Order: sequence, then structure tokens, then C-alpha cells
Amino acid sequence: MDKFKLASRYKYGEYSIWIEISKLTAITKPLNLGQGFPDYEPPSRFPQFLAEVASENNLNFHQYTRGLGHVRLVNAISKLYSNLINREIDALNEVLVTVGAYEALYCAIQSNIEVGDEAIVIEPYFDCYEPMIRIAGGTPRFIPLRNTKPNAEVSHSSDWKLDPEELASLFNAKTKLIIINTPHNPLGKVFDYEELNMIADLAKKHNVLVISDEVYEWLVYEPAKHTRIASLPDMWERTITIGSAGKSFSMTGWKLGWAYGPSYLIKNLCVVHQTAIYTCATPVQEAVARAFEHEISVLNTPESYFQNLSKELKPKMLYLSNVLQESGFVPIIPDGGYFLVSKWTKFENKIDLSAETDKYKDFRFTKWLSKNVKLQSIPYSIFYSEESKVLAEDFMRLCFFKKDETLKEAEKILSTWTSKLL
Amino acid sequence: MDKFKLASRYKYGEYSIWIEISKLTAITKPLNLGQGFPDYEPPSRFPQFLAEVASENNLNFHQYTRGLGHVRLVNAISKLYSNLINREIDALNEVLVTVGAYEALYCAIQSNIEVGDEAIVIEPYFDCYEPMIRIAGGTPRFIPLRNTKPNAEVSHSSDWKLDPEELASLFNAKTKLIIINTPHNPLGKVFDYEELNMIADLAKKHNVLVISDEVYEWLVYEPAKHTRIASLPDMWERTITIGSAGKSFSMTGWKLGWAYGPSYLIKNLCVVHQTAIYTCATPVQEAVARAFEHEISVLNTPESYFQNLSKELKPKMLYLSNVLQESGFVPIIPDGGYFLVSKWTKFENKIDLSAETDKYKDFRFTKWLSKNVKLQSIPYSIFYSEESKVLAEDFMRLCFFKKDETLKEAEKILSTWTSKLL
Repeated sequence: MDKFKLASRYKYGEYSIWIEISKLTAITKPLNLGQGFPDYEPPSRFPQFLAEVASENNLNFHQYTRGLGHVRLVNAISKLYSNLINREIDALNEVLVTVGAYEALYCAIQSNIEVGDEAIVIEPYFDCYEPMIRIAGGTPRFIPLRNTKPNAEVSHSSDWKLDPEELASLFNAKTKLIIINTPHNPLGKVFDYEELNMIADLAKKHNVLVISDEVYEWLVYEPAKHTRIASLPDMWERTITIGSAGKSFSMTGWKLGWAYGPSYLIKNLCVVHQTAIYTCATPVQEAVARAFEHEISVLNTPESYFQNLSKELKPKMLYLSNVLQESGFVPIIPDGGYFLVSKWTKFENKIDLSAETDKYKDFRFTKWLSKNVKLQSIPYSIFYSEESKVLAEDFMRLCFFKKDETLKEAEKILSTWTSKLL
Repeated sequence: MDKFKLASRYKYGEYSIWIEISKLTAITKPLNLGQGFPDYEPPSRFPQFLAEVASENNLNFHQYTRGLGHVRLVNAISKLYSNLINREIDALNEVLVTVGAYEALYCAIQSNIEVGDEAIVIEPYFDCYEPMIRIAGGTPRFIPLRNTKPNAEVSHSSDWKLDPEELASLFNAKTKLIIINTPHNPLGKVFDYEELNMIADLAKKHNVLVISDEVYEWLVYEPAKHTRIASLPDMWERTITIGSAGKSFSMTGWKLGWAYGPSYLIKNLCVVHQTAIYTCATPVQEAVARAFEHEISVLNTPESYFQNLSKELKPKMLYLSNVLQESGFVPIIPDGGYFLVSKWTKFENKIDLSAETDKYKDFRFTKWLSKNVKLQSIPYSIFYSEESKVLAEDFMRLCFFKKDETLKEAEKILSTWTSKLL
């Protein structure tokens, strides 16, 4: 059935590391610090909102709602972000509700990239950016964050910076957009005002669109501070900001996200959305609207989930960092997000990876670790382009949004393993 | 901001009749028989499944599940359809769960159409088929169903047929796929075995893929009978069948659909799905899985919702047909679905449509009706290609999946109006 092969432009989306890892973990049954979601319940009020919506016997919650976003939800999103970016967001024209931030990224990229356009992508990057650009016929131009303190004893995500001249050199007449991700997955870097301003200046100078993936916006560890690039001078006009209910409320399975920005940018995303999906699930939208309304009412009080979450996670991050350091890894201490990137190469000469046949050694190491130590991590090179994977092979990514017992179990697993090595 | 205009291939998706009609109804506030969904509650057990899932305090129901479909759900889908098409469907490789049948159509079309491919589309057609094909770079080749009994006093959807020779003439070396829709929206035609077999023979002869949109599969009025083209000889190999929880359980707002077919076809859809969406909402998938399991357990008993639904709707369909006939419309009696297509041209010379400026007269009539009679219908020409809209201008579409009181209100509205006309 050769005639029925995949349409050629979609070949860039064929491989999924996540499916490969799911298959591996189904066999090795490791302690899983791989994928990015918590292994404990979110606050019970969030699922309760969905339970209430479903049981209220209100017809409207079970039929189609407004295609571009349930009115109660876009109103809540507008209310929250209008305050945060200090500008009135028009709920009906400047917000689009999507199937997770993932669909918002897809819509933003598909609706803007013409064949031949270039898109600047900062390495490491959330792995879907690249196929989304290539499928649209665009060419990603990659620029790595560079470690400005390679010899520091303890590495911090803020040590990793863009070289302004290197970034400037990527802009040209074909440059359509740049994607930024702050707080950053996987590195946990929180771009500071000066860094964002440098990017903003280039975007304005070259009339380039900014897609700002801010799904971890509430996951920032003091004293770091989240800055929304849309709030910088003259940046609203060229910025699409993307957020996620799954990440904001720690319920990744709800798969609800959004994009906001000026109406002439959002309307393009809407075209892709109404062609691919048409509308998102109504009961989930109504439940997220209620969760938002609750969170807006408690913002800046001790009950704020958005603001408490990073306080809840910081000790977990420090605990796992410590475990990793004591085991011989070199973690990069993040300012945000819920991942820890760690150098693993101290073990390179102590174990035999020859049974693994992958091209990149971080793949070989993380697979070996899953099979032999029963700990699942993510090879760091998946977040780099083919040309730059060599920059990433010494690292792996772990998720620390886990129960304390899970993290203790990780400690036990690692100390047992390393004690046998020495 | 000319640089930020919509990517050119998406221009085909820019116009949405549904948004235009929503804007109109927001102003005219008519009795709305336009969009296709019920105006009364689904059986309470269905929302109850979602309420239970949300309140069970099970972590797994609120985090990411398997990207290609929640395991419990693909198992249920496989179990149901394996029986219906008399072939064992492999839940993990031959089923994809999507954001409504809409996303399944998008994935099926995007993953198969290369630039320059042709896709055969039967007129009238669910209006999203055309932009989905054009965005992928394909060319739709249209063929209208033709009324074989133009002089019949009462028209039936089964009178409208494909001309086998006309259909055969559309197949050529560029033909990649044909989309069929049975039971049919908007016409309500249920393709019989012979018609499907004629299409199947052409598909096999020319090695063409069949996308079978069967979202109204349970909405068939006896003695008509739904035939799944995938169950015809040697057709499984080349058929992607698409279904909808929204339509099957009368909860369009849940936005959950699926595609099933041989693994080498489904895997292509999966690539588009994992590029655009990655995964569907977990709690909704778990709830639909439970709803399916319940329905499978009561299939062929008096409690079967799937089987009772058409018994519930047939009197509504007959009632509205009667109202329309008595008012002076000429309805086409459907064998399936929940729409009635009716000729409205008896009124053409009795009312003044000159205040409406639309190109096609069914647009002018349905807008006039919304504004002046306060009854919302859908212009039939939206379901035809630009070249063929003249075939459709005499008709409008009404949805009869409404409370009895709503249908009585429609009767009152129409009789009041027509009594003034005479």
C-alpha cells in the first residue's frame, strides 16, 4: 500500500521520543522521573470543579460552546492577564482557547510560517517546536544557550545565556518569528528583563513575531521573577503568549491551553484552530473557568495555588539536586519549571554502555539507567537539533514534581547503585 | 503589520459560516434550528460518568494519558466495532482517539494529501472537508448527488443518488482518496449496500483510500440500515472510518472522536495528531470509555441508547416534516441523521429579500427568516462547492433534535407567518 504512505511534509513529525520512552518504561518498570507531571493529586478543589460541572445537569455544559473559547473562560483569562501585563485584553478578540498549549503552539506556527520562512529557536527547546516549523515548510535557525561559567562548582540555569551577537546574526529578511520559552523546559532558566529586552529589540528592529511559551509561568523560584515579554515596550503588537491550564493547575490531563495577543495575530491562530479542531471540550472549559475565577479571587493571599506551587516545589528541587550531587551527578540548579538537568559523565568510564546501540551517548546512558538501575530520565539531546546534539550528550533531564517518597526512593536507588560502583 | 498575515495555504479555512451565523443569532435571537445539537439533556448517566471520574480522586484521570488514546477507551472502541464489522480490531494499533470526529478528519486528510493530489467529495458535504483538502495542497473533485425523482410529491433522501458513470469519470492517477459520509449530513441519506459497493469497486480498481465519516451511525430510521464500508469485501485495507462520541452520546460538547482502520493507515493519522495535539483530555476519555462499556453491555436490549435514539428522533423528524409541508415547504424526508433539508422557494415571490445582499438566495432567505420570522435555519449552499451552489439555493437545513416544545414553537412561528402571507 505504497500509495498510502504519510504525506511527505509530515515526515518531520514521525518520530516521537515520548512513545519510545513509554515503550521502554512498559518493559523496564523504572521509578519514573521522565515525563513532566506530578505523581500526586492536585488540590481536590480543581477536580471538584469538573465534577460539579458534570453533575449540574446544565445542558449547555455538554454541547458545543463558542469555537474560539467558552465565554466564561476567555473572560477569566482576560481578567487574569490584563492585570499581569497591565493592559486590557479583549476576551472575545485577543484570546484563543486550545487543546493544551501544544495546540496553541501548532496554531501559532502553522498560521505564520510560509514555505521558505525562517524561525529562530533557542537550544535546548521543547522538542515539538522543530517538527511544527518544518511541517509548515519553514526552516528553524538554532542558537544554543551557552554556559558562561563552565568551571563553576555548582551550575545554575542562569549561567546559560544567549550570545547577543550570535543571536543578531540569525536575523535576516526571511526571519518570520522567534520562539522563546520562559521559564524554560528543560533547563529551568527564567529569562530576566535584560535578556528579554535584548530579544525584544532585535524582534522590533527586524519586524519579527515573538511566540512566548510561558506554560511554567507560575513555577519560578525566588529570587527569580517571571517577566512576560508581551509587557515590554511596544512588544504587545508582535507577541503571541501561550499558557497552559495543565501546567498552571498541575493537571496535565485536562489538555487545555490558550494564546493571547493582539486581535490581528490571534485571528490567524483561530483559522488553524477552526480548521483542525473547531472547538474544545465544553465541560473542561467551564471547569477551568471556575478554577481560574477561584484563583483570581485568592491571588496574593496565602491560599493562592499559583503562588504556593513554587514554594511547594522548591524543597523538592533542592532535595533532588542534593541527591544527584551526592551521587556524583552535576545538576544545573534551575530558577523555574519542574525539571533538573544533570551532567552524568562521571559514570561514563565506570559502566559498560556497549549493549546500547543509540547514536548519542545520553540515549545510551538513560536507557542503560532505566534497564539496570530502574530510574527513568530523559536524554537531553532530544532538546537539541541534529547538528547540536553533541552539546547535550553529557546531560539528562529529571522531573522533581513528585511525592517526597518518590524522591526518597530515587535517593535510595541512586545511593545503592553508586555504592556498588565505588 | 502586513508581515504577520495568515500563511497563504490557510486562506481556505478563513471563512466560517458557523461564526457568521452565531453573530446573526446573537442579534436576531431566533428559535434556533440551525446547528446540529439537542436542546435537551442527554441521559443523566452520561454526564454522571464524567462527574464520577472527576470526583474519584484518582491521580491518573488528571494527568496525561496515552497519546494515541486512553487504553480503556481504545479497548472499548475496539470491542464495539470488532463486533460491528466482524473483524478483530487491534486496540493499540488500529484506533486513534481525537478531539472530535473533526480532528480525525483533519488528521486523515492532512496525513494523506500531498500537493497535487485529488480527493473526491460528494455534494452536499460537511463543509470542513473542502478547506481541509485545499490546505493540504489537494484539489477536491466534486460530484453532486442527483435527485432521481424530481417530480415526486414527497421527496426522500434516498431519491438522491450518485451517477455511477459520472463518479467513475472522476477517478484518475491523481486520485488519492474519496470521502463518504453515511448517514449523511445535511441530506440524511443512508447509503445502501449497493451504492457503497459501487464506490468500493471504484476505490479498489483505482487503488484509492476511503475516508468514511460515520458520525451519525446510530441515527438511522427503519427500514434504512447503516452499512459500514470497511466491512465490505477487501475494503478494510483501504478504509479509515471516523466516529464521534459527541454524536453517539448526544453530547457534542465532549469533543471526542476516533478513527479506526488498518495500522498502516492509522499510523499516518497518528503523526498529524502527535504534531498538532499530542493527546486528548484524560477525564473525558475515561468517562467516554465507561459510557461505551455501559452501552456495549446493553446493546440489543431495550436500554440501548444507541438503538433507542433513532426511535426517539423519528417522531420528531416526522412532526417537523409535517409542519414544513403544511407551511408550504417541501422537505426531503431523511433516512438518517438529525437534519431536514427543505425547499423554500414557494415563498420566493411572496417576500421581499432585497434588504439582504448575499450572493446566494438561500443565504438571503435564511437571514431574512432569522430576522423577520425569528427562525434560524442553515443555507444549504454552504454544503456545496462554489461551482455547484446554484444546485442548492432552493433549500435550507433544519435540525430536529430538539424538545417537543421547541418543535411546537417552530410550528407556531411558521403558521403565524404563513397565515399572514396568504
